[in-house]
Amino acid sequence: MSISKVSRRLTESAAPEVNDIIFKPRLAGFEETFAPLGDINKAHVVMLAEQGLIRPEHASALARGILAMEAAGPGAVPLDPSREDAYFNYEAHLMDQVGADVGGRMHTGRSRNDILATLDRLRGRATLIELIEALLRVRASALEQAQRHAEVVMPGYTHLQPAQPMTYGFYLAGVAQALERDTRRLMDTLSHMNVCPLGAAAFAGTPFAIDRQRTAELLGFDTFVDNALDAVGSRDFVLESIADLSLLAVLWSRVAQDYFVWTTHEFGMIEFPDSVATTSSIMPQKKNPVVLEYLKGRTGQIVAALMACSMAIKGTNFTHTGDANREGTQGFWDAARETIRCLNLLDLVVRTARPVEGRAGRLAAEDFSTATALADHMVREHDLSFRAAHHVVGAVVRDAMDRGVPADRIDAQMVEAAAREQLGAPLGIDADAVRACLDPVSNVAARASAGSPSPDTLRAHVHAALARLETTRASLAQWHERLAAAQRELQEATQALAGRQ
Amino acid sequence: MSISKVSRRLTESAAPEVNDIIFKPRLAGFEETFAPLGDINKAHVVMLAEQGLIRPEHASALARGILAMEAAGPGAVPLDPSREDAYFNYEAHLMDQVGADVGGRMHTGRSRNDILATLDRLRGRATLIELIEALLRVRASALEQAQRHAEVVMPGYTHLQPAQPMTYGFYLAGVAQALERDTRRLMDTLSHMNVCPLGAAAFAGTPFAIDRQRTAELLGFDTFVDNALDAVGSRDFVLESIADLSLLAVLWSRVAQDYFVWTTHEFGMIEFPDSVATTSSIMPQKKNPVVLEYLKGRTGQIVAALMACSMAIKGTNFTHTGDANREGTQGFWDAARETIRCLNLLDLVVRTARPVEGRAGRLAAEDFSTATALADHMVREHDLSFRAAHHVVGAVVRDAMDRGVPADRIDAQMVEAAAREQLGAPLGIDADAVRACLDPVSNVAARASAGSPSPDTLRAHVHAALARLETTRASLAQWHERLAAAQRELQEATQALAGRQ
Amino acid sequence: MSISKVSRRLTESAAPEVNDIIFKPRLAGFEETFAPLGDINKAHVVMLAEQGLIRPEHASALARGILAMEAAGPGAVPLDPSREDAYFNYEAHLMDQVGADVGGRMHTGRSRNDILATLDRLRGRATLIELIEALLRVRASALEQAQRHAEVVMPGYTHLQPAQPMTYGFYLAGVAQALERDTRRLMDTLSHMNVCPLGAAAFAGTPFAIDRQRTAELLGFDTFVDNALDAVGSRDFVLESIADLSLLAVLWSRVAQDYFVWTTHEFGMIEFPDSVATTSSIMPQKKNPVVLEYLKGRTGQIVAALMACSMAIKGTNFTHTGDANREGTQGFWDAARETIRCLNLLDLVVRTARPVEGRAGRLAAEDFSTATALADHMVREHDLSFRAAHHVVGAVVRDAMDRGVPADRIDAQMVEAAAREQLGAPLGIDADAVRACLDPVSNVAARASAGSPSPDTLRAHVHAALARLETTRASLAQWHERLAAAQRELQEATQALAGRQ
Amino acid sequence: MSISKVSRRLTESAAPEVNDIIFKPRLAGFEETFAPLGDINKAHVVMLAEQGLIRPEHASALARGILAMEAAGPGAVPLDPSREDAYFNYEAHLMDQVGADVGGRMHTGRSRNDILATLDRLRGRATLIELIEALLRVRASALEQAQRHAEVVMPGYTHLQPAQPMTYGFYLAGVAQALERDTRRLMDTLSHMNVCPLGAAAFAGTPFAIDRQRTAELLGFDTFVDNALDAVGSRDFVLESIADLSLLAVLWSRVAQDYFVWTTHEFGMIEFPDSVATTSSIMPQKKNPVVLEYLKGRTGQIVAALMACSMAIKGTNFTHTGDANREGTQGFWDAARETIRCLNLLDLVVRTARPVEGRAGRLAAEDFSTATALADHMVREHDLSFRAAHHVVGAVVRDAMDRGVPADRIDAQMVEAAAREQLGAPLGIDADAVRACLDPVSNVAARASAGSPSPDTLRAHVHAALARLETTRASLAQWHERLAAAQRELQEATQALAGRQ
Repeated sequence: MSISKVSRRLTESAAPEVNDIIFKPRLAGFEETFAPLGDINKAHVVMLAEQGLIRPEHASALARGILAMEAAGPGAVPLDPSREDAYFNYEAHLMDQVGADVGGRMHTGRSRNDILATLDRLRGRATLIELIEALLRVRASALEQAQRHAEVVMPGYTHLQPAQPMTYGFYLAGVAQALERDTRRLMDTLSHMNVCPLGAAAFAGTPFAIDRQRTAELLGFDTFVDNALDAVGSRDFVLESIADLSLLAVLWSRVAQDYFVWTTHEFGMIEFPDSVATTSSIMPQKKNPVVLEYLKGRTGQIVAALMACSMAIKGTNFTHTGDANREGTQGFWDAARETIRCLNLLDLVVRTARPVEGRAGRLAAEDFSTATALADHMVREHDLSFRAAHHVVGAVVRDAMDRGVPADRIDAQMVEAAAREQLGAPLGIDADAVRACLDPVSNVAARASAGSPSPDTLRAHVHAALARLETTRASLAQWHERLAAAQRELQEATQALAGRQ
Repeated sequence: MSISKVSRRLTESAAPEVNDIIFKPRLAGFEETFAPLGDINKAHVVMLAEQGLIRPEHASALARGILAMEAAGPGAVPLDPSREDAYFNYEAHLMDQVGADVGGRMHTGRSRNDILATLDRLRGRATLIELIEALLRVRASALEQAQRHAEVVMPGYTHLQPAQPMTYGFYLAGVAQALERDTRRLMDTLSHMNVCPLGAAAFAGTPFAIDRQRTAELLGFDTFVDNALDAVGSRDFVLESIADLSLLAVLWSRVAQDYFVWTTHEFGMIEFPDSVATTSSIMPQKKNPVVLEYLKGRTGQIVAALMACSMAIKGTNFTHTGDANREGTQGFWDAARETIRCLNLLDLVVRTARPVEGRAGRLAAEDFSTATALADHMVREHDLSFRAAHHVVGAVVRDAMDRGVPADRIDAQMVEAAAREQLGAPLGIDADAVRACLDPVSNVAARASAGSPSPDTLRAHVHAALARLETTRASLAQWHERLAAAQRELQEATQALAGRQ
Repeated sequence: MSISKVSRRLTESAAPEVNDIIFKPRLAGFEETFAPLGDINKAHVVMLAEQGLIRPEHASALARGILAMEAAGPGAVPLDPSREDAYFNYEAHLMDQVGADVGGRMHTGRSRNDILATLDRLRGRATLIELIEALLRVRASALEQAQRHAEVVMPGYTHLQPAQPMTYGFYLAGVAQALERDTRRLMDTLSHMNVCPLGAAAFAGTPFAIDRQRTAELLGFDTFVDNALDAVGSRDFVLESIADLSLLAVLWSRVAQDYFVWTTHEFGMIEFPDSVATTSSIMPQKKNPVVLEYLKGRTGQIVAALMACSMAIKGTNFTHTGDANREGTQGFWDAARETIRCLNLLDLVVRTARPVEGRAGRLAAEDFSTATALADHMVREHDLSFRAAHHVVGAVVRDAMDRGVPADRIDAQMVEAAAREQLGAPLGIDADAVRACLDPVSNVAARASAGSPSPDTLRAHVHAALARLETTRASLAQWHERLAAAQRELQEATQALAGRQ
Repeated sequence: MSISKVSRRLTESAAPEVNDIIFKPRLAGFEETFAPLGDINKAHVVMLAEQGLIRPEHASALARGILAMEAAGPGAVPLDPSREDAYFNYEAHLMDQVGADVGGRMHTGRSRNDILATLDRLRGRATLIELIEALLRVRASALEQAQRHAEVVMPGYTHLQPAQPMTYGFYLAGVAQALERDTRRLMDTLSHMNVCPLGAAAFAGTPFAIDRQRTAELLGFDTFVDNALDAVGSRDFVLESIADLSLLAVLWSRVAQDYFVWTTHEFGMIEFPDSVATTSSIMPQKKNPVVLEYLKGRTGQIVAALMACSMAIKGTNFTHTGDANREGTQGFWDAARETIRCLNLLDLVVRTARPVEGRAGRLAAEDFSTATALADHMVREHDLSFRAAHHVVGAVVRDAMDRGVPADRIDAQMVEAAAREQLGAPLGIDADAVRACLDPVSNVAARASAGSPSPDTLRAHVHAALARLETTRASLAQWHERLAAAQRELQEATQALAGRQ
C-alpha cells in the first residue's frame, strides 16, 4: 500500500516543481525534527492506551516501533519528498517497521495540523531557552565589565555631542539594564507559549475521548490550547518571539554603533584587540571593525523576519493554512539562529573592548561636557535659578571656545566675567569649586542620585543587577529540570507500554 | 531675557526650514501634552520642596503658577515654534507668569530629556489602557455572538477547502481566544512600562539629592527606571507596544478575510446589514465590503509603523537622540489611534454579521467536510486502523464526486463498495451510523473533546472565557482607581504647596 | 611570508567567533564567485599590461597563472576562512602558483573594495537576466492560455463581489499586461546597473594611469562608474533590483489569491490537476492548494528582503562599509533565487489551471453581474441618464433577489415594473434586448471598447502583447551575444598575454 | 431623488462608525482632488460629445455645469461623508446645478473605478514632478559646493577608519552622482506611469464606443492602459514611486550620518551655522544636530510606507478592491510630502555645511590615511610587488603608531628600516618622495585616474555632471509645457462645448 499517496482522492503524483521547490526543502531539518516528532508520537500513544482508545497490543507494538526508530536515529529513515513532509515520512517508516495495520492506528484522534503546531511549540521552546541563555551570557559580561570599569571616566554623549562625563562602567550598566528587559520579554514569551495544541486535530477536535491534559504534561507543557481552531490556526507565539528578537536586535545595533564611533581614530576612547578586526587589501594602516558592522548589518535581517512572517500571515484565513503556518513561521528559525550568533559576537565585543583611559579622560576634561556641573553649583551655592545659571555658563563656554581654552582651564575669573555680563554682577564663586566642577572625576563622583554614574552608586546598582541575573538563571535551571522530568516520565511510560506486549 | 535663545551658545535663530518642518509639527499636539506636562512639573516641584532643594517661597510660587496655567488651559499659552517644542513653550509662559527668577528654578535637577521620556510614558500608559478597553469590547461581542450562534452549523475550512463542519459560535470563540492573548500582551506591556524616567536628567543623573521614588509615585508609576542613561535613551516600551498592535492587526486581517470570503455570492454563509457595505457607481447589484477591506488594508499601516520605528532607532547611539526618541516613536501614536478605530470597526463587524443558517448548513451537508467522521467511526466500531479507514473514505468521496452525489446522500452501500475495493471485504457498517456521521449537526455534536465545537463543550468554554474577561475588566478598573488616587495626591500636594506661601 | 596576515598592522589572528560566524559563511558561494573573480583578474591584468603599469613578463606570468587556476577549477583552491573572504583566498592561491613577487603585482591600482563592487555587478547582471527569462516564460504561458480561453465566460469581481461577466482569457491577459511592466522594470534595472566600478580602488582612485573604460569593456559593461567614492560605496542597483522583485511578488500573491478563491468548493470555477495539490492526513476529501499558499506566503520573504537590505544600509556612512556592502546586499541573492522558484511555480499554475466552463458560465448568468449592461442599454436606447438607469436596474435587482429569481430569469415585465416605480412610467423595453443584456456571452461580446473582454478585442490585444514579448526576447538575445563577445575578447587577450612570455 | 443612496440595492444608511472612520477622512483632501476631478469630467464629456454618445444639448449643459463649478471652487461643494467619497459629492453637486437628468448622463461609459485610477495618476504625476524638482535643487547645491571645495583636503574613510585623503568636493560630487541615479529612477517612473486608465470602466470596459486615446490626450497622458482589468486593478506605479523614494531616503540617511559624525567635537571637520542646530535645556555647551537626526529618523517612515502599501495590496484579489487601491496607496502621498520636506532640509544641510579646513587637513596629515600612496610609490619606482610594498608600509605604520609618530613625520629612514625588516634590504627611497606621498595635498593631487579626487579630475567631473543636470532640467521644462498645452486644449474644447448650447 502506497503511503505517499495517502488517499485515492488525489490520483496523480506531485509535479516535479512541487517536489523540488516545496516538499524537498521541508525535509532539510529532519534530523532536528525527528526527536520531537518521536516524543509527540510517544505521548499520543501512551494517552491513547491509557484512555482505552487503542487496544493494548496495538499500543505496545507502536511503542516498540517508536523506540526502535529512536534507537536507529533519523538517518535510518528513508526520506521521500513526494511524501510531502517529515511527519508522513516518519509515519511511512513506522508502518514499514510495525506493519500498516498497527502503524495506521497511531493517527487516531489527531491530525497533521495539531502535530505541526505542537512541533513548532516544542522547537520554539528549546530555541527560546537557548536564546535566553545566550542573552544571559552577554548580560553577565556587561555587568562584569561595568564593575571593572566603574571609575573609568569618559565623555557621555547625547546627539553624539559631548554632554556630561560618565564612566564606561555606567554605560555598560545601562546596556545591561536594557538587556534585562529583553530577557524579561523572552521569558514571558516562553511562559505563555508553553501550552499544547495536540488533540486539536485538524482544527475542530475529535469524537475520540482523548485526554489533552495528559499529552500536554507528558510533553512538558503547562496545559493545552483550548479552542481547537485557534490551537492549529495561530502561531502568534512565533510572531511574539521574533518581535522580542527585533527589539533586542535594535538594541545591539545601537551598542555596536557606539563602539563603532568610539573606536574611530578621532574618538579613540575604546580599542579592540586585533582578533576582532580586519585589515585592508591596500591600506596598510587600516583596522576595520568587522564585528561591529556585522552586528549592525544583521539587525535588518532580524527585524525583516518579523515583517516577512507578518506579511505571510496577513490576510490568510483564520485557520490552518500553509502560508500562515509554514511560510509564516519560516523566518523565525533563521532569525533565532542568527540572533544567537549575534549575541555571541556581542559578548565577544563586550568582553574584549578596552577603554583607552587617558584619551577618554582627556576628552571629558576638555570637551565642555563638565559645564552643567558648574550651572548646578551656581544653583546650589549662589541661589541662582537654573535658567540664569545656564545662561552664565553658556556665556563662559562660548568665550572659552572662541579663545580656544579647553574646559578644564576655565577659571573663576572667566566665570565672573560671564556672570557680570549676564547678571550684571559677579557671583563671588570659589576657585576650587570651579575646578572641582570642571574636573571630570569629581564631576562624576558628585552625581550620586539614583541611577547616576558616581562609582559608589554604580557599584550598588551592578550588585543588585547581578542578583536579578542570578534569579533568572535559577528560573532557567528550573525550566531545564522540569522538562527533563517530563522527558523521563514520557520515556518510562513508553517503555512500560512497549514492555507490556 | 530671551527664552527662545536659551543660551549664548547659539547665536543665530533657527532657519525657516527648521522652524517649519521640524519645530512647528512638534507643537501640533500641545493640547494633549499640556496636562501631563503640568503633572510632571507639579510632581517635580513638590519633590524639590520636600527635599529642600528649592526654597519654600519659590516652590510655592511655582505651584501657584502651574495651577494658574492649568486653570487657564493650553489655549492660554502662546506657541512659538522657534522655542523648539512643547516643554520650552510651557516653561517660557510660566516664566512670564511667575517671573524669570522663580520660573527658572523649576528645571533644577532634571532635563528636557527625562521630561520627554516621562511624557512618552504617561501618554503611552493612557493609550494602552484605551486600547485594552477597545479590545475588551470586541472580545465581549465575539463571546456574546459565540453563545448566540453555538448551534449554527457551517463548514469549517483549512486551506480554504471544506474540512469538517463546525459552528459559527465555535469560530467566534476561537477568535476571542486569540484576542485574549493580544489582551494579555498589552496588559503585560502596560505593567512593565509603568516605571518613571524622571530624575535621570540629561542621561547621567544629577548632583541634587532628588527623590526619584517620590516623583514616580506622584505620577502613578510603580517605581523609577534606575540607570539614567537607559532611562532617557530607551523607548523599547514603544516598540513593544507597536509589536503588540502588529500581532493584533495581523489577527484582525485574518478575521476580516474570513468574512470577506464568507460574504461572497458564492459562499453566502454570512451577511451584513446594508449599513456596513457600500454600493457601486455603475453596477446596481453590488454590495461592497468596505469595512472588511478597510480592516485588511490598515493592517499594513500598523505593522509598517513598527518597521518605521525600528528603522529610525536602528543604528542610533544608545543615548538620547532625536531620531531614536522623537522620530523613532512617532509612528506609535498614529498606529494606536488607527488600531482603536479598527477595533471599533471589528466590533461592528462581529456584532452585525449574521450567519445565513440554511445556506451554511446545506454547504456543510454537501461539501464532504463530514467525511472524517466516517473514518473515525470505522476506527471505533470496525477496528480499522485510521490509515485504512482514511483510504476507504477517500475512495467513497472520490466515487461520490465522480457521480455528483453530495456527501449527505452517501449511503452504506457506497461505503461497503469502497471497503471491498480498498480492504477486500465489506465492513458490515450500520446505515444509521453512516447517516449520523454525514449529518453535519450530529457530526458536530459528536466532537466533544476539549476545545471542540460540540455545542455543550463550546458553551462551557465561552462561560469560562467570559469569566476571564471579567477578571481583566476588574484589573483595568484597578488601574483607573490607582491612577486617580495618584492624581488626587499630586493635586493636593501641589495645592498645599501653593497655599503655603 | 604569511598571506592571511596581510600586514604587520594586525598582530593577532581572528577570534574563533569571527572566523566561524563571519568569515566562514563568506566562502560558501566560492564556486559561484570563482569564475567572475577570474574574469576581473584577467581584465585587470590585460589592462595593466596594455597601459605599461606592470612589466610584460610579470603580466604574462599572471595571465598564465590565472588561466591555470581557471583550468583547475574552484575545487583546487584551498579555502581558509581566516583569510576573510573569496578574494584573499584566490590571491593567496595564485601567489602559491606564480610566486609571491609576481602574484603580489596583480593588486596594483585597485583594491578589494572595487573588486567586491564589480563582483556584485557581474553576479547581479547574470541574476537579472535569469530572472527576466523566468518572467518571460510566465508571460508566454499567460498569453497562450489567454488566447485559448478567450471565450470562456466567467464572473468578474470587484471587492470579490460579482461585478460584470468577463472571460478567463481576459483575466490572464490582464495579468500578462501587469507582468509586462515587471519585465520593463527589470530590463531597465539591468541596463542601468551595467556599469563598472573597477578602478575606483579603495574609494578614492589611484595614482596609476589605469584605463577604466578598457576593463569595463572587457567585462561586458557599457562604461565605468565615474566618481570612485560612489562607485564602491553604493549598491543601489541591489536595492532597485529587490524593489523590482517586491512589486512582482505582490502581483503574484494577488494572482495566487484569485486562484485560491476560484478553486474553492464554493466558487468551483477553476480546477487544478492533482499534481499541484496535496491531501490531508485525516480528511479524505481534501485537495489542498499547496502551490498557491507557497506563492502567497513567499511574497513576504521577498518584500522583507528589501526591508532587511534597506535597514542594513540605513544610517551607514556613505562609503565602503561592511554593513552597507556585505550585509546590506545579502538578502538580494536569496530573494532572487526564491523569485525564480516562485516564477516557475506561477508558470505551473498558469499552465495547468483549467476553467470549469459550465460552473463559471452558470455563475455569470445568475449572479447579477450582467446588470450593468441593462442600465447601459437603457441609456443607449431609452435616453435615460445613466444615474436614472442605474436606479431602475437597482430596483429590478433588489426585487429579483427578494424573490429568489436569478439574473438570467429577469424579464421585460420585471424591468417595466421597476421603471414605473422609479421613473413613473414604463420604458417600452424590448424583451430580446433584456435577454441579450442578461446573457453573459452576448453581454461580454458587446463590450468591445479598447481593453475590453469581448473575444475579438481580446484576441487583437493578445496578438499585440505577443509581439512585444518577442521584442523583449530579442533584446535579451542581444544581451547574451554581447556578453559572449566580451568574454571571447577577454579570453583571447589573456591567452595572448599568457603566450607572450 | 436621493443621490447618497445611489441605488435601491442598499436600503440602510451607513453605520456611524463607517461614516466617521472610513468615509469622512476620504474627503479630507477634497480641495486637492477637485481640480483633477473636474479635468476628468471635462475630458470625458468632450469625448462623449465627439463620439455622439450623448446629445449635444446634454453635453453643452454638462460642460457649462462643470465650468461653473470650477469657477465657484471646491469650497462651494457641500460635503456629505455619507456619499462615500469625493467623486459622489462632486456628482451630487453637479446634479443639483444642472438637474438630475442631465447630470446623470455624465457617468455614461465609465465607472468610479477608472475615475479613481485616473485621479491617482494625475495626482501622482504632479507629485513626481514636484519631487524631481526638489531633488534637482539638492543636486545643484551639492555640485556647486563640490566645485567650491574641490581643494579642501580631508580624510576619507572606509568602515569609518581613515583610509585615504580626499577632498570635501570629491565627497559631494559622489553624493551628487548617487542622487543622479535617484533622479533617473523618478524620471523613468514618471514616464512609465503617464498612461490613462479612463475608459476601463468598472474593470471590464463598456459597450459604448468611447475613444480612450482622446480622453488620454486631453488629460496629458501618452496613451491609455489597455487591458481594463489591469487598468483599474493595478497601482504598481505607486509602489514603484515609493520604492524610488525609499532608495533616496536610504541615501540621504547615509549622507546625514556622515555629517552627524563629522560635526562631532572629536572629528570637528565640518561645522554648521547655529541656525540649523538646537541647544540643550541643561547643558550650556551643546549644539545638537537636529536637522541631521530628522533626516536620519524620517528614512524609516519612507521605507515603511513601501512596506505598508505592499502589505495592504499583498494577497488582495487582482482587481479593484478597497484595500489594494485606497489603503494600498495611502502611504505614498504622505511619503512624498515628507520626502519633499527632507529634500529641502538636505539642501539646507549641503548649502550651509562648512568644512573646517585646518582641522580636516591636520587629521588627513596625521591619521595614516596617506600610507597607501607610499606603497604605490614603491610599486612604481622600486619595482616591488604591491603585496610586498603593502607589507613594508604596514610595518612602518605599526612602528610609527607604537612610537606615537604621526604619519606626516614618517621619514625615509623609518621606511628603510621597515624595508630591511620585511625585505632584507633597503630600497634607496627618495626622502622628498616620502614627504610628497605623506603630504595629503600632493597625495590627493596625484590620484588623477578617472573618478579620482585630484582637483583637476574633480572639476572636469563636476562640469560634466552640471551639464547632465541641465539636460534633466530641460526635460522637466518640456513636461511642464506639454501638460500646459493639454490643459489649454481641454479647456478650449470644454468652453467650445459649453458655448454651443
